[in-house]
Amino acid sequence: MSRVLVIGCGGVANVAIRKCCQVSEVFTELCIASRTKSKCDKLAAELEGKTATKITTAQVDADKVEEVVALIKSYQPDLVMNIALPYQDLTIMDACLECGVNYMDTANYEPEDIEEPEWKAAYEKRCKEKGFSAYFDYTWQWAYREKFEKAGLTALLGCGFDPGVTQAYCAYAKKHEFDTIDTIDILDCNGGDHGYPFATNFNPEVNLREVSAPGSYWEDGHWVEIPAMSIKREYNFDQVGEKDMYLLHHEEIESLAENIPEVKRIRFFMTFGQSYLTHMKCLENVGMLSTTPIEFEGQQIVPIKFLKALLPDPASLGPRTHGKTNIGCIFTGKKDGKDKTYYIYNVCDHQECYKEVASQAISYTTGVPAMCGALMLLTGKWTEKGVHTVEEFDPDPFLDALDKYGLPRSENHNPVLVD
Amino acid sequence: MSRVLVIGCGGVANVAIRKCCQVSEVFTELCIASRTKSKCDKLAAELEGKTATKITTAQVDADKVEEVVALIKSYQPDLVMNIALPYQDLTIMDACLECGVNYMDTANYEPEDIEEPEWKAAYEKRCKEKGFSAYFDYTWQWAYREKFEKAGLTALLGCGFDPGVTQAYCAYAKKHEFDTIDTIDILDCNGGDHGYPFATNFNPEVNLREVSAPGSYWEDGHWVEIPAMSIKREYNFDQVGEKDMYLLHHEEIESLAENIPEVKRIRFFMTFGQSYLTHMKCLENVGMLSTTPIEFEGQQIVPIKFLKALLPDPASLGPRTHGKTNIGCIFTGKKDGKDKTYYIYNVCDHQECYKEVASQAISYTTGVPAMCGALMLLTGKWTEKGVHTVEEFDPDPFLDALDKYGLPRSENHNPVLVD
Repeated sequence: MSRVLVIGCGGVANVAIRKCCQVSEVFTELCIASRTKSKCDKLAAELEGKTATKITTAQVDADKVEEVVALIKSYQPDLVMNIALPYQDLTIMDACLECGVNYMDTANYEPEDIEEPEWKAAYEKRCKEKGFSAYFDYTWQWAYREKFEKAGLTALLGCGFDPGVTQAYCAYAKKHEFDTIDTIDILDCNGGDHGYPFATNFNPEVNLREVSAPGSYWEDGHWVEIPAMSIKREYNFDQVGEKDMYLLHHEEIESLAENIPEVKRIRFFMTFGQSYLTHMKCLENVGMLSTTPIEFEGQQIVPIKFLKALLPDPASLGPRTHGKTNIGCIFTGKKDGKDKTYYIYNVCDHQECYKEVASQAISYTTGVPAMCGALMLLTGKWTEKGVHTVEEFDPDPFLDALDKYGLPRSENHNPVLVD
Repeated sequence: MSRVLVIGCGGVANVAIRKCCQVSEVFTELCIASRTKSKCDKLAAELEGKTATKITTAQVDADKVEEVVALIKSYQPDLVMNIALPYQDLTIMDACLECGVNYMDTANYEPEDIEEPEWKAAYEKRCKEKGFSAYFDYTWQWAYREKFEKAGLTALLGCGFDPGVTQAYCAYAKKHEFDTIDTIDILDCNGGDHGYPFATNFNPEVNLREVSAPGSYWEDGHWVEIPAMSIKREYNFDQVGEKDMYLLHHEEIESLAENIPEVKRIRFFMTFGQSYLTHMKCLENVGMLSTTPIEFEGQQIVPIKFLKALLPDPASLGPRTHGKTNIGCIFTGKKDGKDKTYYIYNVCDHQECYKEVASQAISYTTGVPAMCGALMLLTGKWTEKGVHTVEEFDPDPFLDALDKYGLPRSENHNPVLVD
């Protein structure tokens, strides 16, 4: 019996909400709130009569702490699930603290305006201190640790697939498979094909940042930063096949390095098709990916926004995307004094996801873990107070829930390792 | 001693006018007219004191016959050189007829608005009759043949390099090298490098039409049309090296087929670099080459126009373009009963052109033949009345002029043939 406030009504929220409604015995009441209330109303109408969960909707501008506070005070939820853009993580955390309610999200805070002087100065300081230049990291949310602890509240950070499930895989490996872990390679493979020569699964600006930002990995106690897309590997993924993958910076590396202190190296790889990369490069070459407005016919136009208007709506890719994702972690380490390797991963089928929740696997693999994380908090499986990432909690009930609700694990005790 | 009216003040006109001013004994007076008089004034100011040619300028909207007529009546030229966009060929020809003055241009008429219903119907009829689908052809200008003949006037069509010099090469081969010509391959190679990942030498819309239009060639008395860019060859060009080239439709094939009736096959090849084609393809894939406006932030925006605003101004490429062009014709045929091959071509250096006339070789190779064609008409070397293409005139004085004024011929009596 619980009341949950979900902030956000995009692709991932859509999946998380539909999955919550499959577990009505826990999610008895749900309020869906976003800037555009009509989106929430539409989803609520679609779920009408199909779930025992009692759904209400609300309008909220999550950039404004006072609006979130007012909504929490009026709805009185047991948990706030932030499944909006990562730009609002801090304002929603502030509101949760003010109202004394638990918080969770699916992605690290990053600012909407990376040119904002005060933030930029803090970011540049952080780059120097930590040694990597990604815009997102835990600095801003870890600063809330003491506040949440003192308030006796839990903030669960980054409970999607990666970050999220990948960290639970690490906690699971540490708990059951290894005495000490030496290396972790997180492999995120999307073998889906939407049939367009070029389209992006997310906002193209976010996609661009991924491929144009320097990569970095953790080795021997410090970050190693490399030029964008400069480390490439091939890997033959179960149920997907051979794919090119590239080393990227990814947020969970940072918390894993802190929470598994003996680890010697942590890397993150994501697959990209050659056609996707070629299109990105050509668009970048002609200036179409620029975020700086240009004067055109008397208007100020931001090229990447115009490009976004030309590209297929990411939401329209669902029905046309075929193939599977395969995301997981490969470990090397020691158990009982012996060298050991272990690979734990999930394979998810785009079309099956679409049939179930009207979204393809990219949203599904983020939305389902969000629901399962909420389930852990609401059912008292995860109770630690303070600001925490997924690997800090017991992985067993979480992975059991994932097995049950659509993202079952696969294991391989003799995997091919990445060079 | 002659007065010449030049309509147009873009890249090619800039070269033609500067070259005319090197031959002041013929081009004694020149009026430069365009829609934007300030461009003409700027060029006139630059030439001030550097030439004996007396230069004046005028404003004219060449879409309007009456404006061109008024200008011709006031200036009283011996010849009108149309070096504006090919959209105005017909209005300027009408004005010349009305005023009784000779006419020349550098490119086939095509309409600015290819969706205009009356033109579109005529175009579709022509496609069926002739068997190729390029937008440009001689139909519209050849319809003026009788009018120019009756008026005792000459209209010289397409006197740039290709069309233009390539046809003079054909006339020369026919006059001096062969009794009968069996095949003609026109090879247009641009080995220039401007150092940008992507930029277009012309309006990108014109560039796009080139690579996205079906190719066609003349064989055994009829046109053969092929999918765009589907016939590719490699050729090792003198002073440029090995390049990929693609079979395109090109206007001079049509008149050559008429004027060299024994010819069995005429093809046109143009070189394109892989990077250029990849960028074009990616931009096309995302819809950036579309001419259909889309709604964006309350405005109607034509994607290809927005792209044009992002790309480097073609005029800015001149100082940065290095390398050479190589354009010419390879012939097979018979002389004195024996099989024979022959290649005649010009090699032109981008940087040398830029030093001489502040334009690179793309404009230079079109502007110099325009001046030389005007020279033929003004000095009485070419006197035939009616509407004619370059191969219908004596090639000898024209090629001599080209040798002298910057585009010297090279010859090879044992060339590598194209498959």
